[in-house]
Amino acid sequence: MIGIDWGSSNFRAYRIGPDGTVLERREADSGIAGLERTDYPAILQQRIGDWLAVDSGPVLLSGMVGSRQGWREAAYVACPAGLADLAAALCSVEIGKGRVGHIVPGLSCRDADGVPDVMRGEEIQLFGLDLPAGMVMAILPGTHSKHVRMVDGRVAGFATMMTGELYALLSNHGLIAAMLPQEPTDFDEPGFHAGILASGQPGGLLHHLFGVRSRRLFGELAITAAPDFLSGLLIGHELRSAERHGEVQIIAGQKLAKRYLKACGWLGIPAAIAPEDAAARGLYRLSRFLPG
Amino acid sequence: MIGIDWGSSNFRAYRIGPDGTVLERREADSGIAGLERTDYPAILQQRIGDWLAVDSGPVLLSGMVGSRQGWREAAYVACPAGLADLAAALCSVEIGKGRVGHIVPGLSCRDADGVPDVMRGEEIQLFGLDLPAGMVMAILPGTHSKHVRMVDGRVAGFATMMTGELYALLSNHGLIAAMLPQEPTDFDEPGFHAGILASGQPGGLLHHLFGVRSRRLFGELAITAAPDFLSGLLIGHELRSAERHGEVQIIAGQKLAKRYLKACGWLGIPAAIAPEDAAARGLYRLSRFLPG
Repeated sequence: MIGIDWGSSNFRAYRIGPDGTVLERREADSGIAGLERTDYPAILQQRIGDWLAVDSGPVLLSGMVGSRQGWREAAYVACPAGLADLAAALCSVEIGKGRVGHIVPGLSCRDADGVPDVMRGEEIQLFGLDLPAGMVMAILPGTHSKHVRMVDGRVAGFATMMTGELYALLSNHGLIAAMLPQEPTDFDEPGFHAGILASGQPGGLLHHLFGVRSRRLFGELAITAAPDFLSGLLIGHELRSAERHGEVQIIAGQKLAKRYLKACGWLGIPAAIAPEDAAARGLYRLSRFLPG
Repeated sequence: MIGIDWGSSNFRAYRIGPDGTVLERREADSGIAGLERTDYPAILQQRIGDWLAVDSGPVLLSGMVGSRQGWREAAYVACPAGLADLAAALCSVEIGKGRVGHIVPGLSCRDADGVPDVMRGEEIQLFGLDLPAGMVMAILPGTHSKHVRMVDGRVAGFATMMTGELYALLSNHGLIAAMLPQEPTDFDEPGFHAGILASGQPGGLLHHLFGVRSRRLFGELAITAAPDFLSGLLIGHELRSAERHGEVQIIAGQKLAKRYLKACGWLGIPAAIAPEDAAARGLYRLSRFLPG
């Protein structure tokens, strides 16, 4: 089978054997952003045409490729939801030469106040985890961090936090951006730690953000430490306001996962980094629900 | 005397009689942004040269004109501070034809954790209020909202919140901006109220911000209500995380002051709008400390 995790700004394809082994993987740094609906079949041929020629198994596509701005919209499946629910809601697309691909829907949920939330692409990573029975919390950090409550292998509910997006906005525009170095800096662990601590002080995030400026102004935060102080401040707020239950599974690339693991450690949140390639395993497991 | 409140993006000048009456006022929409140190005397002549010719009283200048990026830096005075402390720390500048003007310093403070905070320009408005003895809280909403604890007419301490700046960043860049109308909308009170309520739900600001997107996605927030929902969300977070004590004095232009008064009402915070022209009164009161 072929599994593709196709997001806004990235593309990860896996050729997977009948036993679930990843035989080959291929990545691209460009996602669905800027694509027209009619562009998709040609891009797929260009990127994995050779795989499609030799592998006649199912082709599954997850992520923003299934959004309103993507190839074809696959409506959100309401939580609680497991793999069988995703399988029942797959959407077909013609991927070229009469062949059909299956787009994986995202998930939606509502919190206790009825406020809706959505994910698209993360669900397939969650279903690639090997989790114990009962309740397990997972974090998928990033532009829009997802904090997910899994129960018996199904997604029971989740909350999205705009941590990464706010970091990018504040680093590129306005008062704080003017206080940061022009060039990227190495990871500054003391700065990151100070940010995590600052996130627990009284006054709330809107006040803590101004503290980046006033600390810089008073020479109490080095310019090279400022980006990671800001990162720690935001991640600290994210983790402090998230639901907790037992050991949290961190699902992310190595660098980001290690940053969150450190932060969890300082905040006394038991945490572990989940194995990589969860998306490939999730896509493989989902393909087992297809007939044939 | 002549009092000038000269900020980053605005200029407000007052000609004030010996009894404190504002005889004339003049405004400009351009502040210190982009000015060189040597530009100031000519701009002053151009904007209030006629006043300077007829009024030989003191000339006081407050606001960002006294910052490192302004005409001359007037170092922050540490809180607790009153008018006499400001008067003792005035900085002179040559305003043309051998005449001397006085730049008003800003204030600094440290919270219980030792984190510094600063204001510049707001202090003169605070000293223009007629406050009862004892502790009074004041809010100066805006790009960087100030929540100030006044004790017996002096500034005891304060906390800055980046409410207005974050509103501008989120309205102009990224995910939420894409969900807002292109054109300015009329004030949507139900949207603003819903935002204030949402700010009290579990999950924290980073999560609540994503709710703007998910509510729009599910058709549960009209596009015309979205800007004021976002405003309510941020102002709600600001007010909920601020120190409270008795009736808070709101110091702002009418539109913004009414918005905060409404929000305070919904949150059960006793509040009143302070009289306008507080800056003029503060500058006048400060001028009384000058010799002659």
